[in-house]
Amino acid sequence: MMYDVVAFGEAMLRLSPPHFGRLEQTHCLDVEIGGSELNVAVGLCRLGMPAAWVSKLPDSPLGRMVRNRARELGVDVSHVIFSNKGRQGLYFVEYGAAPRASSVLYDRGHSAISTIQPDEVDWKKILSKAKLFHASGITPALSPSAAETTAVAMKAAKEAGCLVSYDLNYRKKLWSPAEAKRCQEPLMKLVDILTTTEEDTGVVFGIKEDSYQKVAESLAKTFGFKVVAITLREDISVWKNNWTAIAYADGKIYSDRTYTVEIVDRVGAGDSFTAGFLYGYLTGDVDKGVKYGNALAALKHTMPGDFNWSTLEEVEAQLKGAGLRISR
Amino acid sequence: MMYDVVAFGEAMLRLSPPHFGRLEQTHCLDVEIGGSELNVAVGLCRLGMPAAWVSKLPDSPLGRMVRNRARELGVDVSHVIFSNKGRQGLYFVEYGAAPRASSVLYDRGHSAISTIQPDEVDWKKILSKAKLFHASGITPALSPSAAETTAVAMKAAKEAGCLVSYDLNYRKKLWSPAEAKRCQEPLMKLVDILTTTEEDTGVVFGIKEDSYQKVAESLAKTFGFKVVAITLREDISVWKNNWTAIAYADGKIYSDRTYTVEIVDRVGAGDSFTAGFLYGYLTGDVDKGVKYGNALAALKHTMPGDFNWSTLEEVEAQLKGAGLRISR
Amino acid sequence: MMYDVVAFGEAMLRLSPPHFGRLEQTHCLDVEIGGSELNVAVGLCRLGMPAAWVSKLPDSPLGRMVRNRARELGVDVSHVIFSNKGRQGLYFVEYGAAPRASSVLYDRGHSAISTIQPDEVDWKKILSKAKLFHASGITPALSPSAAETTAVAMKAAKEAGCLVSYDLNYRKKLWSPAEAKRCQEPLMKLVDILTTTEEDTGVVFGIKEDSYQKVAESLAKTFGFKVVAITLREDISVWKNNWTAIAYADGKIYSDRTYTVEIVDRVGAGDSFTAGFLYGYLTGDVDKGVKYGNALAALKHTMPGDFNWSTLEEVEAQLKGAGLRISR
Amino acid sequence: MMYDVVAFGEAMLRLSPPHFGRLEQTHCLDVEIGGSELNVAVGLCRLGMPAAWVSKLPDSPLGRMVRNRARELGVDVSHVIFSNKGRQGLYFVEYGAAPRASSVLYDRGHSAISTIQPDEVDWKKILSKAKLFHASGITPALSPSAAETTAVAMKAAKEAGCLVSYDLNYRKKLWSPAEAKRCQEPLMKLVDILTTTEEDTGVVFGIKEDSYQKVAESLAKTFGFKVVAITLREDISVWKNNWTAIAYADGKIYSDRTYTVEIVDRVGAGDSFTAGFLYGYLTGDVDKGVKYGNALAALKHTMPGDFNWSTLEEVEAQLKGAGLRISR
Amino acid sequence: MMYDVVAFGEAMLRLSPPHFGRLEQTHCLDVEIGGSELNVAVGLCRLGMPAAWVSKLPDSPLGRMVRNRARELGVDVSHVIFSNKGRQGLYFVEYGAAPRASSVLYDRGHSAISTIQPDEVDWKKILSKAKLFHASGITPALSPSAAETTAVAMKAAKEAGCLVSYDLNYRKKLWSPAEAKRCQEPLMKLVDILTTTEEDTGVVFGIKEDSYQKVAESLAKTFGFKVVAITLREDISVWKNNWTAIAYADGKIYSDRTYTVEIVDRVGAGDSFTAGFLYGYLTGDVDKGVKYGNALAALKHTMPGDFNWSTLEEVEAQLKGAGLRISR
Amino acid sequence: MMYDVVAFGEAMLRLSPPHFGRLEQTHCLDVEIGGSELNVAVGLCRLGMPAAWVSKLPDSPLGRMVRNRARELGVDVSHVIFSNKGRQGLYFVEYGAAPRASSVLYDRGHSAISTIQPDEVDWKKILSKAKLFHASGITPALSPSAAETTAVAMKAAKEAGCLVSYDLNYRKKLWSPAEAKRCQEPLMKLVDILTTTEEDTGVVFGIKEDSYQKVAESLAKTFGFKVVAITLREDISVWKNNWTAIAYADGKIYSDRTYTVEIVDRVGAGDSFTAGFLYGYLTGDVDKGVKYGNALAALKHTMPGDFNWSTLEEVEAQLKGAGLRISR
Repeated sequence: MMYDVVAFGEAMLRLSPPHFGRLEQTHCLDVEIGGSELNVAVGLCRLGMPAAWVSKLPDSPLGRMVRNRARELGVDVSHVIFSNKGRQGLYFVEYGAAPRASSVLYDRGHSAISTIQPDEVDWKKILSKAKLFHASGITPALSPSAAETTAVAMKAAKEAGCLVSYDLNYRKKLWSPAEAKRCQEPLMKLVDILTTTEEDTGVVFGIKEDSYQKVAESLAKTFGFKVVAITLREDISVWKNNWTAIAYADGKIYSDRTYTVEIVDRVGAGDSFTAGFLYGYLTGDVDKGVKYGNALAALKHTMPGDFNWSTLEEVEAQLKGAGLRISR
Repeated sequence: MMYDVVAFGEAMLRLSPPHFGRLEQTHCLDVEIGGSELNVAVGLCRLGMPAAWVSKLPDSPLGRMVRNRARELGVDVSHVIFSNKGRQGLYFVEYGAAPRASSVLYDRGHSAISTIQPDEVDWKKILSKAKLFHASGITPALSPSAAETTAVAMKAAKEAGCLVSYDLNYRKKLWSPAEAKRCQEPLMKLVDILTTTEEDTGVVFGIKEDSYQKVAESLAKTFGFKVVAITLREDISVWKNNWTAIAYADGKIYSDRTYTVEIVDRVGAGDSFTAGFLYGYLTGDVDKGVKYGNALAALKHTMPGDFNWSTLEEVEAQLKGAGLRISR
Repeated sequence: MMYDVVAFGEAMLRLSPPHFGRLEQTHCLDVEIGGSELNVAVGLCRLGMPAAWVSKLPDSPLGRMVRNRARELGVDVSHVIFSNKGRQGLYFVEYGAAPRASSVLYDRGHSAISTIQPDEVDWKKILSKAKLFHASGITPALSPSAAETTAVAMKAAKEAGCLVSYDLNYRKKLWSPAEAKRCQEPLMKLVDILTTTEEDTGVVFGIKEDSYQKVAESLAKTFGFKVVAITLREDISVWKNNWTAIAYADGKIYSDRTYTVEIVDRVGAGDSFTAGFLYGYLTGDVDKGVKYGNALAALKHTMPGDFNWSTLEEVEAQLKGAGLRISR
Repeated sequence: MMYDVVAFGEAMLRLSPPHFGRLEQTHCLDVEIGGSELNVAVGLCRLGMPAAWVSKLPDSPLGRMVRNRARELGVDVSHVIFSNKGRQGLYFVEYGAAPRASSVLYDRGHSAISTIQPDEVDWKKILSKAKLFHASGITPALSPSAAETTAVAMKAAKEAGCLVSYDLNYRKKLWSPAEAKRCQEPLMKLVDILTTTEEDTGVVFGIKEDSYQKVAESLAKTFGFKVVAITLREDISVWKNNWTAIAYADGKIYSDRTYTVEIVDRVGAGDSFTAGFLYGYLTGDVDKGVKYGNALAALKHTMPGDFNWSTLEEVEAQLKGAGLRISR
Repeated sequence: MMYDVVAFGEAMLRLSPPHFGRLEQTHCLDVEIGGSELNVAVGLCRLGMPAAWVSKLPDSPLGRMVRNRARELGVDVSHVIFSNKGRQGLYFVEYGAAPRASSVLYDRGHSAISTIQPDEVDWKKILSKAKLFHASGITPALSPSAAETTAVAMKAAKEAGCLVSYDLNYRKKLWSPAEAKRCQEPLMKLVDILTTTEEDTGVVFGIKEDSYQKVAESLAKTFGFKVVAITLREDISVWKNNWTAIAYADGKIYSDRTYTVEIVDRVGAGDSFTAGFLYGYLTGDVDKGVKYGNALAALKHTMPGDFNWSTLEEVEAQLKGAGLRISR
Repeated sequence: MMYDVVAFGEAMLRLSPPHFGRLEQTHCLDVEIGGSELNVAVGLCRLGMPAAWVSKLPDSPLGRMVRNRARELGVDVSHVIFSNKGRQGLYFVEYGAAPRASSVLYDRGHSAISTIQPDEVDWKKILSKAKLFHASGITPALSPSAAETTAVAMKAAKEAGCLVSYDLNYRKKLWSPAEAKRCQEPLMKLVDILTTTEEDTGVVFGIKEDSYQKVAESLAKTFGFKVVAITLREDISVWKNNWTAIAYADGKIYSDRTYTVEIVDRVGAGDSFTAGFLYGYLTGDVDKGVKYGNALAALKHTMPGDFNWSTLEEVEAQLKGAGLRISR
């Protein structure tokens, strides 16, 4: 199968109590699938850009479920490795309401993907016809061999002539800032497009500036990125946020409107931004990337699960100023 | 059975994914019943004014379900025609969240009611003891024979001494503005009470004015309506709207307070206005109509399904300034 | 078993339609347990302060369910009386949306607890190692013998050297203001800590002042309470409230920040305040009581059911200024 | 409205845990409506014979729900009395599995209908155009005034020229066999058609014979009934029963095939028999009554809730030997 | 993408009331996807044999849902045509219990696939690397152009060197036996493997014999099929069936054990047989085909939905005599 | 708190797809709690014999949920250790239907309890007032330190004068037969009451006899047990089993009737037997133990979840020959 983008990382079963129940009180869990890099691949496929997702899953109904659901959304899963080693990672989501923030409880230790070895994946073959490789700062935090595999993949991508996209995605439960920095700094030179937040940049690289625009610029200059994209969220309340994003490229800041979003499920919004950005960038330019990423991310907040079920038509309707009236 | 109002039109099975799920992702659909004219009949029955609903349904569990649920709410369904021709119309509702508007997907083609013929209904008998006949601009759009049946019914209503109420209800998926105008213009002379929105008036009749008050006045003068009622919605967000309504009659504008509504389900709010207006008008005057219609419509937003389960007591509590404190 | 607090009162099965459905339209009811004094005991146990709940339940699956669920949350139920007399009280909750307030429909008549007799409970033994006894104005309204049992319990508590906490909790469906006053006035001299609202104080004791601070002061002076706590709710809408609380003690007013809460379920918020206040007061002082009560009550709005599933850690995070960002 | 049959009795909210959960463990209750005499009226309406149901309900969402759902099935509810006195009766159903039988827990005390007075109902008017009046042994057990109202109704029915149908329906939680006998014996002379089981006959009237055929004959001879119908159930297991019924009339026994039924919900099967019998008898003869009653009752076991949603067509398909193959 | 089998036909949204509810009474519908030929493709993919499905769907969330779910199970959907013409077919399933058979209500008229034209599909390309083409007697019944497209596809398959598999699948709601015969008789000469039932063979081709073995033989001889497979179902009750299958090939009958199945959902069992048979036949011989088909079909009865979620491992465990003990 | 029995072992979150869905296809998981030794403690509490459960859980909402639900059923959880090490074990249940057996998928690796150390528990104190200590062959399989802790606990129990009950419970996913034998053989001398199956005895100790009676005898003689109890299950189908049990003590075999059970959920039936046996044995003798254990186990099959919600009254009704008629 042909695809333009290859994403690499973990996906988990995502279990959440319905109707704002607390995890401790629930008698039922809704089952979704999520994982930052897979979410990006899904977003791309929804917009019409074929994407493959590379990962390692346990050979069990749970592992197959993750594979199936990625496939349901159109993601190429032919390179996913099934294994008898390691378990299927899980995570639990509690939906909040002000003043109680939503929260995530991870149960991802000892996963199949944490056992991945660099030589298990034939990156050269997988990337041979792709335009872009996407990874994130979660995977190298999973295990030393996962970190090594990430590095190997990124190098292979460069060698294959792919652009390399990277979401810094710092996860404090997985490693310390110092570990994150030590591991990822060497990788940054392989990255063309970095997506991150002001906060993660400060924690991992210690880069703090007066404005997020300057953070983006500073990142680009420090590491030589082609593009740095930064997403911006203002928590008006738990159910209502302001959302926007900017990018820095070629010495310029690209910005877009701010979306006020009513929040059904905010998990995966950043990944939707990345997907939309990559779509816009690969089919246009940085400006298109920011606009498509921003709209796709705004829409993500309105639907349950990590995946973004929007269509290209819906994203473009947002860009044209879709109203809030019921559509018949 | 005795009833004061006769409504004529289609009702559909209404299928919606729970919990803000997108249609494409759902594994369960909630089943409600809805249809503009039936919704009006339901609203009237809830307020204590008996109403009958005339329609044509397939002789199947689905058609019977529509009939049963109308009956559950107290609507007289003894004149509904069951037929082996035509299918049960369906529609799908997706609940939105800003910036994604709620949306409706119709699957109403080839319905039983689209096969209705003017001579299938004994309007004279049905209307003999009624005070008012209600139709809307949806029915004539369903098929030529449905349009003809609507016209025949409206004439029969005038002959029976009934008031005729009409909701313009333009549905762009069913016909073009030109078709809507050509078909409905001749019917307007039979109408006493017109309910519509500024937008539909502009699209169908090309009437555009500086204010909705002037739109109402212009409509009344153009077609000679006794009353023109216009509903007004301001979309603060998808989950919060401002809602009010006005009426023009006897050279005067009647208005009421604006309700800020938190939206559980906005479908059918306009029909609730019509029901409340007709109740108030038939038991009082235009002013009472506007107030009851406005309150009933505001309450509609707070409950799932097309039908309005409010009671007269609840409507009147709103008119007296019911607070937002929990009622024990 | 050892416990610091003993609460006495009724708990009911609480049945509510899911998804904002009206009671009249529902085909499913969610089952929770609730009762003002039990809610207080639950809140205390969640914060780590052991509490017992004394009540009388029917010896049936429903009565056992109430007992079990109290036990699930850690409440000592070893003194609950099971009886073949009287039924299990129920109440129904309808969740509202502006402009429709949430509402409660009680079906609590002829309950087991309404048959309770003062000599059925060995208060001396039960209270022997407790620090505080909590009751509310609901129990004496249930029946004359329940009123007498409440009075006997309060006296026993004083004799045992316990502090006595009382929530005025006026329920107009159960008795008139005059009855409430006549019955409760004599009890007030046994009370150390009174929790109430400005409104209930006015209705029951006719105390009306310019400000709630003065209401608290006036109450304290009239009845000689050690502490008077008053909760304050501002209904911005049905889904969003402002919430705070104050206390008057030793001639001073203690106040705290106002929480803007997004409302999943507001029932039991006052009881959470009481629980948090008692926890803070018994482990610190009035100021700590107000802060913990206020935070625990704010959190209550964000979860379904009467019970508060927050942890001490979550309450203290609020006091330290927990943000609205998703917690990972 | 016109109807052929008038049924009188209580209907309750029926709450049951889904999926074979025990009541004590459930967090959700399915809501149905049921009551022996209403179930009969529903069955008749489903077969195409109009029926009215007379009862007394609380003026509350719960009482209205009972009324609405009866109406949904086509029952005439125009003579139902709404009252501020008395509560809405409830009952709980636990679905069993061998060796645990299904069970019912009643919470029907202090109901609105238990307050009914003979002069609250204008029986003469209600029965003026009916062919048959149906009551059961549950209603007189509810309260003395309900017993008196039943007696008054039965006499009014005889005076109006109606046939009187009576289901003995002994409920041991409501009264003793002696009370049941003392109260009902005098009523038996007003009864034309008695439906019962061998067991209830033995308990209430002390009639015990070698065979159910003889029980029927003995009943008919003792009380002078036109027809005695007896239903017969063999519990192979909880999920599988054999079911049949016989009738005795004019010195003859009428019997029918035995149905092996897979049990979704057996509550209301006897009422379905009565409905089918009355339909068959009133449109044909005793033999038709037994066959239609038997088939309608067999079908009842296959669907959830007290009500029988079968159609006349489905019943007649059973009589013609409908197979078990999927119907497409 | 590479695949061994190409299936062509309609797939529908499949809506069913949960918990044995009747369609007329339900308030919720479970959403599955089903269609005979797609079910076959799904079964093959589950066993590890890649399959593609060719169809025409409306360009709507419903059409995309059908495509997605086929993809979820691993079916190649790259040749599915999306169109603005025609609607998404639906069907409703009611689960039965003895003596009420399960039933299916179709709402498939005016579907997108009924508008398909022979020249819309590039069969030559699609079939170029396939080993087998599968169609059924449903598709030609949908419309003349669908019949023509089926014929064109079958010829193209022969030309491409594919085996042709055909399931007679007579649907009496779609056409008469005479129409079915007239249309399909000419196609039979293109068929290598015919799957059917004794009943369908009798209805469509008028072939009736003393035994199903002779039916198979007679079919093979009449039309020159390589293999004729016949599935056999004995309805012990609605919840318990005996199931087996035979095949006739090369003058011999191949048979297998009879499975007693407990029925969760029997829809699609025949399609699972076909899938298993084709898998066994293509990877082995007729005997293997019968065994794998039989086991896969037996397993199908135990899971909800048309699709068979069994794995090859589970099928082979059946062949080795898997017990009924819980597997840990 | 006082209790008669102390059980020690792991409890897991138990997640199962509703309605016979396969794990791979589900979008919802029901949440129950289960673990062999906890199940025994629950069964004892339900019968009125107080029991404590000792375990180690993660300090998380999941760990607290396990603790809470044990407490809900009345189990003393005051000795449960909460820890920051190790995760909450999970297991998944798929409900089967013939010919597909039900199945269990474990995800219990790296659990908190696998980190337990012998010196973390003050067995002497915990067991000081208990009559019996219960463990099973699962716990020593979890980790070497869990095995050591089990051994230490059993010795402490003997020293405290407690009877020691042990369920052999072989879990092949956790260890090999050889490991199981090596680890457990030395423990057997500490055991008074052994519960097991014929199959496990063969696998672990290599004891195979002509009959289960002889197996019991052989076990008793080999290891010197006071009592050996063996449960016996015959799988008629997945939904219907025959169930009974025997015990060998003092040279005699004690047996009881065979129950034919309709299966809602068979997980935990063996644990229910143990609970019932211990109850009967401790309040009576071996014969009573067998009868109560057998009845409690039979009832377990009829309700969802590992826990047995039966009451002593229900168990004793079975012993008296409770019928299958609906209980009103």
